[in-house]
Amino acid sequence: MTGWWSDPPRALDAKAGRAAAERQSRLTKPPGSLGRLEEVAVALAAMYGEACPNVDPVRILVFAGDHGVAAAGVSAYPQSVTAQMVVNMARGGAAISVLAGALDASLELVVLGTLGEVPRDSLPPEARVIGVGPGTRDFSRAAAMTPADLDACLGAGRESLERAAAAGCRLIIGGEMGIGNSTAAAALGCALLGRPAAELSGPGTGLGPSGVAHKAAVIERALRLHLGAIDGPIEALRRLGGFEIAALAGAYVRAAQLGIPILVDGFIATGAALAAVRILPGTRDWMLFGHRSREPGHARLLEALEAEPLLDLGLGLGEGSGAAVALPLLRLACSLHRKMASFAEAGVDGALP
Amino acid sequence: MTGWWSDPPRALDAKAGRAAAERQSRLTKPPGSLGRLEEVAVALAAMYGEACPNVDPVRILVFAGDHGVAAAGVSAYPQSVTAQMVVNMARGGAAISVLAGALDASLELVVLGTLGEVPRDSLPPEARVIGVGPGTRDFSRAAAMTPADLDACLGAGRESLERAAAAGCRLIIGGEMGIGNSTAAAALGCALLGRPAAELSGPGTGLGPSGVAHKAAVIERALRLHLGAIDGPIEALRRLGGFEIAALAGAYVRAAQLGIPILVDGFIATGAALAAVRILPGTRDWMLFGHRSREPGHARLLEALEAEPLLDLGLGLGEGSGAAVALPLLRLACSLHRKMASFAEAGVDGALP
Repeated sequence: MTGWWSDPPRALDAKAGRAAAERQSRLTKPPGSLGRLEEVAVALAAMYGEACPNVDPVRILVFAGDHGVAAAGVSAYPQSVTAQMVVNMARGGAAISVLAGALDASLELVVLGTLGEVPRDSLPPEARVIGVGPGTRDFSRAAAMTPADLDACLGAGRESLERAAAAGCRLIIGGEMGIGNSTAAAALGCALLGRPAAELSGPGTGLGPSGVAHKAAVIERALRLHLGAIDGPIEALRRLGGFEIAALAGAYVRAAQLGIPILVDGFIATGAALAAVRILPGTRDWMLFGHRSREPGHARLLEALEAEPLLDLGLGLGEGSGAAVALPLLRLACSLHRKMASFAEAGVDGALP
Repeated sequence: MTGWWSDPPRALDAKAGRAAAERQSRLTKPPGSLGRLEEVAVALAAMYGEACPNVDPVRILVFAGDHGVAAAGVSAYPQSVTAQMVVNMARGGAAISVLAGALDASLELVVLGTLGEVPRDSLPPEARVIGVGPGTRDFSRAAAMTPADLDACLGAGRESLERAAAAGCRLIIGGEMGIGNSTAAAALGCALLGRPAAELSGPGTGLGPSGVAHKAAVIERALRLHLGAIDGPIEALRRLGGFEIAALAGAYVRAAQLGIPILVDGFIATGAALAAVRILPGTRDWMLFGHRSREPGHARLLEALEAEPLLDLGLGLGEGSGAAVALPLLRLACSLHRKMASFAEAGVDGALP
């Protein structure tokens, strides 16, 4: 399959990045003493092509979908929870809803396909219901998606991103909801990185050691079934991914094409990010990483992306929540960069040579 | 010396802490999946005696003072910078001023004594000028402070804290400005922990390896001069501390006595925090730790306090800036704790047994 996702990404503006780095060196602080916050300000400057960037307004996109592989007993929660949590998100009771409100970020819910019903009247008008199906097929037995399913999911991500761009949003956080999706993300990661199942299989929402071992066995079986037929990241995504993972990947790729920075969340979002970067390598340039998840396999995915997240708080909730919690760091990095006085402006001695 | 700092700290409310932990277990998320944010919400609940706490309004106290030991060539910057940076803070150009504005926290500047002049009309009306002297004495040759100096500085911290309490502030961030103060904090830490100078001596605002070695030698000399006469934390603070470090310690102790949570900043603030905890051990109960500094010795101080900071961003600026950057995490932890729906409220299946 080829498609819109092969269109080139926007290039970073190296000149704006250099101007921002030079500005950092003149601010009234010891050199480098704002650490990662300096890096963030400089990286954002290169993304926006502005020496003094800001990230607002921010849009959070949450994609929901069910997973056939849940039937193999790989999650601590029943599949009914996916649809119920979408309604909880719409009503404001989920972590990501609370965070969106507290952070003054807009939240778009996109229901790609769930086993349980999500009544349309339980959703706000701006939510999208795509209706790909009641969930993916069990990928330990067959490909998770048909080519048409995958195309619909990638396209849903693209469209969400384009709506955000049209609304003037300057930063995107992608989140997900889908019982079983740490299994899909792990399987996808194993296929893309050529690693055994055990390396990326973890507790997810709360499996014990025997549950994790079973999950790894299910993934290993799926890898044996599919690996020979996987000829690239799109086919890996179709066979082993999920509706919401594909939509995230589509949104990330489109963000890079339109030049909108992405703040990546945890294990599942990073699996989607890896797929997006394998589909269109320049997508990596547009990514910042919010947090290191408590899910052990996250470290492996981050390493493959040469990513060092901002936070390490033992979070493992998904929904985009860890990236949302990191958002204030980006805002503060931009405020410091824009508003601090230089040594010359402040009449402070001792700008180091 | 005995004094007000020996009055007992307020006790935590264990019942409110248990109620908060119980509430966390009912929220619509996998158990423990908000990681450190759950711990923060529960810790704050026990401090405030409220099952659903919030930390606002927040007061940032920045104490400034010069250090006689700077004459020994232990800093990358000249001593003139202390007074100049106080003026920069007052004008809004310093990192902590920008952060206070961005975070909607009030900022009180307290000038204890600087070598350079801080014109009164350069300061806002709410700033305090204590006038202890032009700086401490060089502690590699004599005690840094007289008993009267120390009493004035501890008292200044106490008074700042009491003003914050009277204004209804619910959380305190302490910051400092004082060229040479990483040397004082290191010497104080060595005396309190019984460690050699090399373990706590680091680059501070930007020394190279030979500068760090010289700094360690100066501290080692000071330790040889004073250790025999140090009979407790008050005397250690008087002989090796600084005006602003003593004021921070006084503010922390008073916060614990009045039951106001403290968000501790980096290396110098943690040195003051260690002194405060040695002066009045229950002070530790009222502390949260904002960040792990790039200053290598910070790890040793944190370890002594059994403290695990929230952030690790390579910051090393002081002024209270690292704690301020961590403040949004506390606010988000409280919002999530207060506003997320429970499984029962949301009608979501699968609250784990």
